[in-house]
Amino acid sequence: MVHIDLNSDSGESFGSWNMGDDAAMMRIVSSANIACGYHAGDPSVMRTTCTAAVANNVTIGAHVAYPDLPGFGRRFIDMTPTELTDAVIYQIGALQAVAALAGGKVSYVKPHGGLYNTIVHHEAQAQAVATAIAELNRASGTNLSLLCLPGSVVVEKSQKAGVEVFYEAFADRGYTSQGTLVSRREADAVIHDPVQVAARVVKMALEKKVIAADGTEIALDAHSVCVHGDTAGAVGIARAVRAALEVEGVQISAFSV
Amino acid sequence: MVHIDLNSDSGESFGSWNMGDDAAMMRIVSSANIACGYHAGDPSVMRTTCTAAVANNVTIGAHVAYPDLPGFGRRFIDMTPTELTDAVIYQIGALQAVAALAGGKVSYVKPHGGLYNTIVHHEAQAQAVATAIAELNRASGTNLSLLCLPGSVVVEKSQKAGVEVFYEAFADRGYTSQGTLVSRREADAVIHDPVQVAARVVKMALEKKVIAADGTEIALDAHSVCVHGDTAGAVGIARAVRAALEVEGVQISAFSV
Amino acid sequence: MVHIDLNSDSGESFGSWNMGDDAAMMRIVSSANIACGYHAGDPSVMRTTCTAAVANNVTIGAHVAYPDLPGFGRRFIDMTPTELTDAVIYQIGALQAVAALAGGKVSYVKPHGGLYNTIVHHEAQAQAVATAIAELNRASGTNLSLLCLPGSVVVEKSQKAGVEVFYEAFADRGYTSQGTLVSRREADAVIHDPVQVAARVVKMALEKKVIAADGTEIALDAHSVCVHGDTAGAVGIARAVRAALEVEGVQISAFSV
Amino acid sequence: MVHIDLNSDSGESFGSWNMGDDAAMMRIVSSANIACGYHAGDPSVMRTTCTAAVANNVTIGAHVAYPDLPGFGRRFIDMTPTELTDAVIYQIGALQAVAALAGGKVSYVKPHGGLYNTIVHHEAQAQAVATAIAELNRASGTNLSLLCLPGSVVVEKSQKAGVEVFYEAFADRGYTSQGTLVSRREADAVIHDPVQVAARVVKMALEKKVIAADGTEIALDAHSVCVHGDTAGAVGIARAVRAALEVEGVQISAFSV
Repeated sequence: MVHIDLNSDSGESFGSWNMGDDAAMMRIVSSANIACGYHAGDPSVMRTTCTAAVANNVTIGAHVAYPDLPGFGRRFIDMTPTELTDAVIYQIGALQAVAALAGGKVSYVKPHGGLYNTIVHHEAQAQAVATAIAELNRASGTNLSLLCLPGSVVVEKSQKAGVEVFYEAFADRGYTSQGTLVSRREADAVIHDPVQVAARVVKMALEKKVIAADGTEIALDAHSVCVHGDTAGAVGIARAVRAALEVEGVQISAFSV
Repeated sequence: MVHIDLNSDSGESFGSWNMGDDAAMMRIVSSANIACGYHAGDPSVMRTTCTAAVANNVTIGAHVAYPDLPGFGRRFIDMTPTELTDAVIYQIGALQAVAALAGGKVSYVKPHGGLYNTIVHHEAQAQAVATAIAELNRASGTNLSLLCLPGSVVVEKSQKAGVEVFYEAFADRGYTSQGTLVSRREADAVIHDPVQVAARVVKMALEKKVIAADGTEIALDAHSVCVHGDTAGAVGIARAVRAALEVEGVQISAFSV
Repeated sequence: MVHIDLNSDSGESFGSWNMGDDAAMMRIVSSANIACGYHAGDPSVMRTTCTAAVANNVTIGAHVAYPDLPGFGRRFIDMTPTELTDAVIYQIGALQAVAALAGGKVSYVKPHGGLYNTIVHHEAQAQAVATAIAELNRASGTNLSLLCLPGSVVVEKSQKAGVEVFYEAFADRGYTSQGTLVSRREADAVIHDPVQVAARVVKMALEKKVIAADGTEIALDAHSVCVHGDTAGAVGIARAVRAALEVEGVQISAFSV
Repeated sequence: MVHIDLNSDSGESFGSWNMGDDAAMMRIVSSANIACGYHAGDPSVMRTTCTAAVANNVTIGAHVAYPDLPGFGRRFIDMTPTELTDAVIYQIGALQAVAALAGGKVSYVKPHGGLYNTIVHHEAQAQAVATAIAELNRASGTNLSLLCLPGSVVVEKSQKAGVEVFYEAFADRGYTSQGTLVSRREADAVIHDPVQVAARVVKMALEKKVIAADGTEIALDAHSVCVHGDTAGAVGIARAVRAALEVEGVQISAFSV
């Protein structure tokens, strides 16, 4: 049976500020990337989100980020490798304790926003993230994997360090014929039609392919597809994706347990 | 053989700001209360401090605090019990991961500053701290104990929740004949003479007694004695305490492992 | 002609998190309490909000708070008077610069949340706030006034320090026959019906009276009435209040310029 | 009479953490770059530092920075121009209010650390800083100038925006024959001998020249020379610099009033 993972950024509220419809998304996805307090999330938001994930059999990932609440972790920060490694370990550890309280555990790590984009190409920071996960696995006997963009510099560094790596595709993003994401400055960067998005994800799951912006069909082997839950429209798209996968008999299940 | 624990607040540097002589204190104490990033400490300071503790066979405690870097965690914050419980769990979890990387583990929890003083009497916050430790022990299979002031409201609440409690005395603080600390507004609040401080700790260890400010001898059963390392003078006093205990044949060893 | 001020908490978004419908409220109120980055607001949110206030001829107030983003400034923090005075001056100064850029100026100060409630009774913190405003007026040649709850300890302290004080009533809160707010734990604490709320504010403006929870009519002399904009329902109520005042010929104008 | 300005980073303590000997430096320098709470400094530290500056007739500059306490403002943060402009205005405004309370005023702006280095070459961030100062001058009727490294991209952008620019040299840094700073990775980067440092500053003041690392004499026209106060050794060097200038009859006076 064909199966695929759906993941979504979760627990991105902070204090009195709400973001995203976590309750709705927990019934749609199989993996939740939960913010750890550095770009979003506070201990109580983390706990509520972990509890919801456990209640819905959703696998928990640590959505680690730069320390940047005002910038929501989207801005590159030129941290030293040591600072970054230690910050990643801190965040994972905090979420591990909160997840344990909720009856769950952290299964994987997905870097967020600016950090996610940086370790596609930044050697030192990519190594710092790989080192953090590898060292924590070694020290704690865990088996945390990494979820990231295929082709990232962090992939090779993580595998070399003994960390299992899973690839992510984006349900609503346009792809170039080279398999990279269409820049957000271009018209084809984001696809808004739920039916079209759902059809793309089905194709990704069944054929391991996607139609690029120039019409060519390209290979795209992803273990997980990222869907959004930050607007009502986004939740609608995510629901359409799940429904279409179920109609086609694709099993939605976590890449990591 | 008589033994007693010496503990000290550690890892209270933050970013470019240094505080305390951790390197010196790690050769004196048997337990280190390590800041977890809420009142002091950042992930790299935490790691360096844990590494030093492990290298010196010093037991690691989580020095949990209110979220208050500008106030160094000394100011009461009227957090709800849920906020406080979750914040304590977050801090312990972060330190657990960092400690594991350093080859150690967190053995106990000592609330810091404003929180320490508040849970002497504040029912709801005391319960929140007790609940955090108890729930984390249950969820993670750990056996974290609590180090606090004897007579605190948090003692009974923690014991009821199944958390082992250890009592702390202060090497350099004056005691009233009722066994409470002399207020810092009084002349006898702090004892500055290393010889006198060392003699008091020896008496605490051998006789379980201390001479109160009014000259009466009172009972004081402490598992651990807190010494300071934030000034050169403080480190000198701590060294004098250790030396005097060794001369008297008192073993300096952690209350918790 | 009878006139009254309507004020609303504004600029409470932060980074990527939105709160309240400032655009709608700027067309309803005559005074905007703008967050200064301590409980909410960041420099860019502050600037956008000041620009909107100026464009709508809305008077700008500094909504000063405890330094507490995760708690949204709602939690009492036991700051020393010096810390609090300096923090209030810092926040006002920051908003003054941003307001100047937007072509406006700060006219008054309204403490927020936990600080607002604390200086109703807390002598030292009330004095600290009064001192901050008085000293800044003296040093900068400004004439900042204070907007607060009548009967607060801060009233007398501010007046003694030479700060003009204006009183605020709440459009949607129940009052006891003693003129204090009904506790939020009671059923009558908040009135949700727009028509009823609007009628109460009209009575406050025209008769300087309100019907208390026990049915008695009490005197209530307020220079400003606080309306909310944090939910769609709240904005609807605020609109109903403004419409009812206009129908009755009450002029809605700032208490301070 | 020949004159030169000596400037020093000041007010870099934070909460319970101390840094630098501001009291000593205020008797040595003519201009103090005072931290504004973003990389260091809190409102009370800012006030104490401004009060000391006023008492010693030292001109006050706003030491504006990236929002980065854990990184002490030393790490590049990829802020948008709008975010950066607004953040600079916020910091200047906060310091203006605090300085007014202390009986002084802010006369110039010196970007700190990572921001200082970035606007040497980063077009968009340089423009954002220039815009902030220019707009604030226009809106508030002030005449804030900019203190920065000669040759920086920010120089031209500031001058175009109508902001007066002053150049800074470094007392203890080696210069290349091209007039740029020797990289900190090289052996000649920092000069530690007080006598040698003092002689260099005297040469800068009297001849507008410095001996480069390769022995060639190069032109160096600086309005201000930066001295450090973060260690006892640094204070000693700063004192030696001042004494040597006085012996040579060079007047130490602020570039800006």
